[in-house]
Amino acid sequence: MRAGPSQDEVRRQNLGALLRYVHVHGPISRAELTTRLGLNRSTIGALTADLTAAGLVREEAPRGARRAGRPSLVVLPESGRVYAYALSIEVDRLRAARVGLGGEVLDERVYDRPRDLRVSEVVGPLAAFVKEMQHAAPEGRYVGVGVAVAGMVRRHDGLVRLTPKAGWVDEPLAEPLAEALGGDHTVRVGNHADLALLAEHLRGVAVDTEDVIYLHGEVGIGAGIIAHGTLITGHGGYAGEVGHMIVHPGGRTCSSCGARGCWESEIGEEALLRALGTDGSGRIPAHQLIAAMRGDPGSHEALRQIGEWLGLGVANLVNIFNPEMVIFGGTLRNLYLTTAAQVRSRLNSLALPASRELLRLRTPKMGEDAALIGAAELAFTQLLADPLNEAPSARQAT
Amino acid sequence: MRAGPSQDEVRRQNLGALLRYVHVHGPISRAELTTRLGLNRSTIGALTADLTAAGLVREEAPRGARRAGRPSLVVLPESGRVYAYALSIEVDRLRAARVGLGGEVLDERVYDRPRDLRVSEVVGPLAAFVKEMQHAAPEGRYVGVGVAVAGMVRRHDGLVRLTPKAGWVDEPLAEPLAEALGGDHTVRVGNHADLALLAEHLRGVAVDTEDVIYLHGEVGIGAGIIAHGTLITGHGGYAGEVGHMIVHPGGRTCSSCGARGCWESEIGEEALLRALGTDGSGRIPAHQLIAAMRGDPGSHEALRQIGEWLGLGVANLVNIFNPEMVIFGGTLRNLYLTTAAQVRSRLNSLALPASRELLRLRTPKMGEDAALIGAAELAFTQLLADPLNEAPSARQAT
Repeated sequence: MRAGPSQDEVRRQNLGALLRYVHVHGPISRAELTTRLGLNRSTIGALTADLTAAGLVREEAPRGARRAGRPSLVVLPESGRVYAYALSIEVDRLRAARVGLGGEVLDERVYDRPRDLRVSEVVGPLAAFVKEMQHAAPEGRYVGVGVAVAGMVRRHDGLVRLTPKAGWVDEPLAEPLAEALGGDHTVRVGNHADLALLAEHLRGVAVDTEDVIYLHGEVGIGAGIIAHGTLITGHGGYAGEVGHMIVHPGGRTCSSCGARGCWESEIGEEALLRALGTDGSGRIPAHQLIAAMRGDPGSHEALRQIGEWLGLGVANLVNIFNPEMVIFGGTLRNLYLTTAAQVRSRLNSLALPASRELLRLRTPKMGEDAALIGAAELAFTQLLADPLNEAPSARQAT
Repeated sequence: MRAGPSQDEVRRQNLGALLRYVHVHGPISRAELTTRLGLNRSTIGALTADLTAAGLVREEAPRGARRAGRPSLVVLPESGRVYAYALSIEVDRLRAARVGLGGEVLDERVYDRPRDLRVSEVVGPLAAFVKEMQHAAPEGRYVGVGVAVAGMVRRHDGLVRLTPKAGWVDEPLAEPLAEALGGDHTVRVGNHADLALLAEHLRGVAVDTEDVIYLHGEVGIGAGIIAHGTLITGHGGYAGEVGHMIVHPGGRTCSSCGARGCWESEIGEEALLRALGTDGSGRIPAHQLIAAMRGDPGSHEALRQIGEWLGLGVANLVNIFNPEMVIFGGTLRNLYLTTAAQVRSRLNSLALPASRELLRLRTPKMGEDAALIGAAELAFTQLLADPLNEAPSARQAT
């Protein structure tokens, strides 16, 4: 029902498309840009000039260009001068990075956190990291802050709801963090699995896919889901809580939500600890659990069973979404690699043939950095949508 | 990454937006159109003139307009002259309708079919219906054919795969139907639940929703899913096979897919027949089963249990999608109305509070016509995307 865009809107879209192209793909010649974006040479020239004047891109001779003849210039992002801060609140640590336009990590900090920290207690260390990195940063333009958190994030204001184990229930995060940072920068909060998927979709294993599910295991299990190339958030922002899909009615009580038979009770941290014969949550870091199990022959049968549950849940998601790729991240990476036979076998018996025929199972290309890179993308969103900050609403917001 | 549209593309988008507006909303004044579409008066005037010249809309005095003064004309779709054929292949019947631009059913045929008909055997009666209606139709423009089928439909060519019970496995449908109809009209095939949802989203109970699930029960259970306002099809076109979500490992063997513990084994036709103490599939038409159970006190406890399974599966979908609305169609309409207490109770105990807090449970506004109206929308898609058939690809296709 939407009418076509006005000429101003078309120009904004074109500026955004060009900036986004060099942000994602790196240096590229103007000639190549005309082909990739389907715009003519003079339009590309004007857009490049505007973005250069705004300090967002520059043109230079390509590396390794020969001296003879006029060098064909390439357009590239001002990675060192335009940057965002990416923060990741994980169960066992806090991470922060300064990420340049173009996706390069320019600086980074990590802090091992105790599990019982409340949100009010993570804001301080995260803000300190940002200030520290800001102090060390060269002159440049800081465009915003993105935060990845392993919890349910309300879409319109970044409120964090029900973070497993940490016991956060309805805790504001964007606002106190913005306050602690000072200044007027936007802080955007996203779900860990959603942001890891955004990063893998843009720069990792899921480039060129349109329908893909990223499963993230830490203490609980969550998913980021892209359908038709777009991240599914749900009405309030809470889509992807696949760990609370009931797959075993009458099964164990979920320590996160209280229901019986949740998928995460069968494949999450507690299930792994149970299989290892320990209940010492947190004593073995989540990412080392599978390695510990591999070295413990007594837990091999339990591991096999956990693999069957993993496969069953994936089969359900395949029947529901008919994705072309499922990515196993966090603790699920090693769990999948160790139980791939069980996962495949369950998929073959439980997923419909048409729904799984083109399915690829993969692990993340960016490893543990995916959510951090995704958080940076969140921070760059506004800049890429309207590089010169010309839209009426954007102007009002500044 | 897409650059903004060219002026030709903007014009096509504007023509499409205007035609779509009157198609969905009916008669509207030019003044109102300028507001709704955010375009200026002269643009609206030029677009209306072009669509009028093409015989797609006309302008007339509004009904009940007073004689005094110059009447303010309204733009309305040429419903009687521009139409599509909508076909619906259901388990117990075949339906066909001639549907005018604007969504009005102008003519209709129904045929009670035996369940064991193969696809090659439904093509004949469906083509006969279309020819009969075409013969009776006044002079006009026939823009295409849409077909709703209760099976998995491959997105790119309308191949039908695994239709429950009918035993169709990989049967082409679009092509033989186009052949039987003669002429060069496009035949587009869609899944029953997807098309019913499209209709409810455009004209029914789900207008103004962005995240909505339509559950359809007939023999099996399927879903149409809209996320961010867009129908989710999955990679091949098979998304929404929620009936084959495993919710009861070790449960009954699904007579459609062969797995154990499918949701549809607990809430589909077989479950209802079992609860009634009969296995005479088809002897009681699917839509009368719940009424039969209500009249049979011996099956009340079984019905209550089926309601619990219905609620469990809906809770899973709510955790996965965080929808704002779930619609219960087909046999699930009466099942939901009869077991709403069980469904609500399961949702409260199994769906996460944040995921269900704004959820509305509804029944279809269009009743049994939803899929037929949706099939007509499928047939109108191309016309609404490019009303004057000017896009380079569209020109090549004619």
